[in-house]
Amino acid sequence: SDYFKRSAVSTVPNSDPIRVGIIGLSSHKGWAFKAHYPAISQLPSQFQITALYNEKIETSLETIKKLKLSEATAFPNLESFASSTNIDMFVVCNCVPDHYKTIIPLMEHSKKNPNLKYIFVEWAIGSSIHQVEVIYKAVAERGLQSIVALQGRKSPYILRAKELISQGYIGEINSIEIAANGAWYGYNRHMKSPMFIYEMENGVNLVTTTFAHTIDILQYITGSYFSRINSMLFNNIPEQELLDEYGKKTGKKVPKTVPDHLLFQGALMNGNVPVSCSFKGGKPTKKFTKNLVIDIHGTKGDIKLEGDAGFAEISNLVLYYNGFREEGIPAAPGQASYDTTKEFTEVYHLRNYNAILGNIYRLYQSVADFHFNTQNLTNVPSQFIMQGFEFKGYPTLMDALILHRLIENVYRSNIIGSTVNVSNITQHV
Amino acid sequence: SDYFKRSAVSTVPNSDPIRVGIIGLSSHKGWAFKAHYPAISQLPSQFQITALYNEKIETSLETIKKLKLSEATAFPNLESFASSTNIDMFVVCNCVPDHYKTIIPLMEHSKKNPNLKYIFVEWAIGSSIHQVEVIYKAVAERGLQSIVALQGRKSPYILRAKELISQGYIGEINSIEIAANGAWYGYNRHMKSPMFIYEMENGVNLVTTTFAHTIDILQYITGSYFSRINSMLFNNIPEQELLDEYGKKTGKKVPKTVPDHLLFQGALMNGNVPVSCSFKGGKPTKKFTKNLVIDIHGTKGDIKLEGDAGFAEISNLVLYYNGFREEGIPAAPGQASYDTTKEFTEVYHLRNYNAILGNIYRLYQSVADFHFNTQNLTNVPSQFIMQGFEFKGYPTLMDALILHRLIENVYRSNIIGSTVNVSNITQHV
Repeated sequence: SDYFKRSAVSTVPNSDPIRVGIIGLSSHKGWAFKAHYPAISQLPSQFQITALYNEKIETSLETIKKLKLSEATAFPNLESFASSTNIDMFVVCNCVPDHYKTIIPLMEHSKKNPNLKYIFVEWAIGSSIHQVEVIYKAVAERGLQSIVALQGRKSPYILRAKELISQGYIGEINSIEIAANGAWYGYNRHMKSPMFIYEMENGVNLVTTTFAHTIDILQYITGSYFSRINSMLFNNIPEQELLDEYGKKTGKKVPKTVPDHLLFQGALMNGNVPVSCSFKGGKPTKKFTKNLVIDIHGTKGDIKLEGDAGFAEISNLVLYYNGFREEGIPAAPGQASYDTTKEFTEVYHLRNYNAILGNIYRLYQSVADFHFNTQNLTNVPSQFIMQGFEFKGYPTLMDALILHRLIENVYRSNIIGSTVNVSNITQHV
Repeated sequence: SDYFKRSAVSTVPNSDPIRVGIIGLSSHKGWAFKAHYPAISQLPSQFQITALYNEKIETSLETIKKLKLSEATAFPNLESFASSTNIDMFVVCNCVPDHYKTIIPLMEHSKKNPNLKYIFVEWAIGSSIHQVEVIYKAVAERGLQSIVALQGRKSPYILRAKELISQGYIGEINSIEIAANGAWYGYNRHMKSPMFIYEMENGVNLVTTTFAHTIDILQYITGSYFSRINSMLFNNIPEQELLDEYGKKTGKKVPKTVPDHLLFQGALMNGNVPVSCSFKGGKPTKKFTKNLVIDIHGTKGDIKLEGDAGFAEISNLVLYYNGFREEGIPAAPGQASYDTTKEFTEVYHLRNYNAILGNIYRLYQSVADFHFNTQNLTNVPSQFIMQGFEFKGYPTLMDALILHRLIENVYRSNIIGSTVNVSNITQHV
């Protein structure tokens, strides 16, 4: 089963590359430029950018020119982009508050493009659970295979942690503690920081970013959803002070309606494992702790993941492991048995790993693995609904929808002041 | 105000020592022998053991002989002990499940002793909130000054943390995280460990010990009670394996009804500060984290307290501080102002500090400070109801009662599956 964990994408496929139409790629800034464009560029036999759509066509034209996207066409409106038959995959990378109003017409107009097979949607998909549900249904009805940017699942550190646990290296999980620091939501705000991430109605905040990515990673590592949760949200910093371009305080205050703290605790469904989490905004001095700490304690060993920012999905991390191999785990083929008295220690760190690019790159790799069947699997389905906790594949809109249901319950638990049963959120709508 | 923080007890008082009658002191084992007896022995001008009561008078007689308690009388029954006029202070140190049935008749029979002034009760006072309430009322009606062994408040580390915070060294508190490991409640149990701490009805468990002492310390350090809390209790280890006297597994399993995990989160009343706590039993391998970690993050600095056991009140600790002095805090007398740009770092550790003895010793010191008015204060009241969050004084049954109300709400929050408002638990019954 290790076979599924590594990409075989270095194999140059025999068929044509997947033709990609991107919404929201600029020539010099933004997430699509920083992460998606370089990832795609590193897989030239697998992906080719053939179409761009931005609100202003000048942006697309300039991007094609500056990035030398010789095969790409700039489309003047969403309808013409959506119906172009020169696209196999949409990549939706504009601002989250614009996703809904982009994707719904996209699904409608793309009915004229019989070649379309994939839609890759940036997290957080939509601004509310309602938007995400409608997007999910529209994409399903259009018959597309979805991919979502829960790219933390592709982080080498996260996969290594998942491997160690699934192979019995920490025994049964006893308990988990997480502390993460999401930089944006503290006492100060940079002048250039986009306004929409500080306004509750846009759905891009500490809960949907820092919390959602981290908890998705935790569920993925442990292979379990939650059975019950409790959350408390705080907006202790309703006004932030603006910082100028040099990071100096300007004395000017601006309102913030999104939370700066989330306390979250609950039990994992598998093993009733207690999980304690503290997510916070800003940069209160934090001299003795990293901005991201995930402690997983087992009966036979521990895993600690650390990072400099509370965004595990875009941070380079360090994984620490110490423990004994569990008894009762079947040995790998060719190995008779394990020495269960031997203590192992591992410090896993890729010194110059660029996680912003690297995790998104590995997500595209997984899409290529699927599309070109690089592992020469037999009986590969033409579509799959969700990744769940499999090593192979990639997260889909169904994975995203389940995560959004958890987010919705985080809000709900805080509002109604109750512990909430979430054991049914994986069920179909 | 620093004046109140240090004991002046080294001054030999002019009056006679406080005559102490102890319930539960043996000649060679138990908590009274390990902590109370050596603490009292170190304050010979302030305290003198004059009376002993144990279920078997032989125990008292042997203790008097072996410990050379030349001034002490062994009493044959509780009534004669209680009514002896040769006692100024009761110390109740027998098993917690026996406290209630000891203290109630003690208050009745002690009416014959007009000299009695104090009752010092070991934590957890009683086995339930009901018992604690009745004990509180009985002691109040008897007109005694109470002392309770929430001795963590006297730990030098806890007092230093409280000082740093109250003097503005970390600014405003932003958030707090606690992880503590209470050794008894895990996968294994030592054969000699007393049965009653594993049975829920006795009220001595992870919640009343590890949690209660630690959260009392946290409230004391921060000077704030909680406004709302949520808790989840787990008994994931309903059977423990017995260990023999050498710590080897015997294969024999015994039932455990007390919890092995407590997730607790809430907001402090002052500043609405988010607090995230994970309390666990046993010794799951925990290679990368200490068994006690209290992280207090402020706007100007951090305090980290670490210890080798999840019992801060009886552990030697290390205090780490780093930060900047807050603006707006009045300078000390004789100092014009503070340099708020200067970063301070402090590692505070007393290498051979015996916390089991030391914290109880300092509690007795505080009682002596009060009794003999060693600081020559004017207008000292003859009694006080509670310590609250004052540096001076010592915790009383009222402090204990408030803490028990919090414990009761921890159980309640878990049972009803709700976040609970606890902002009224400091109000009088």
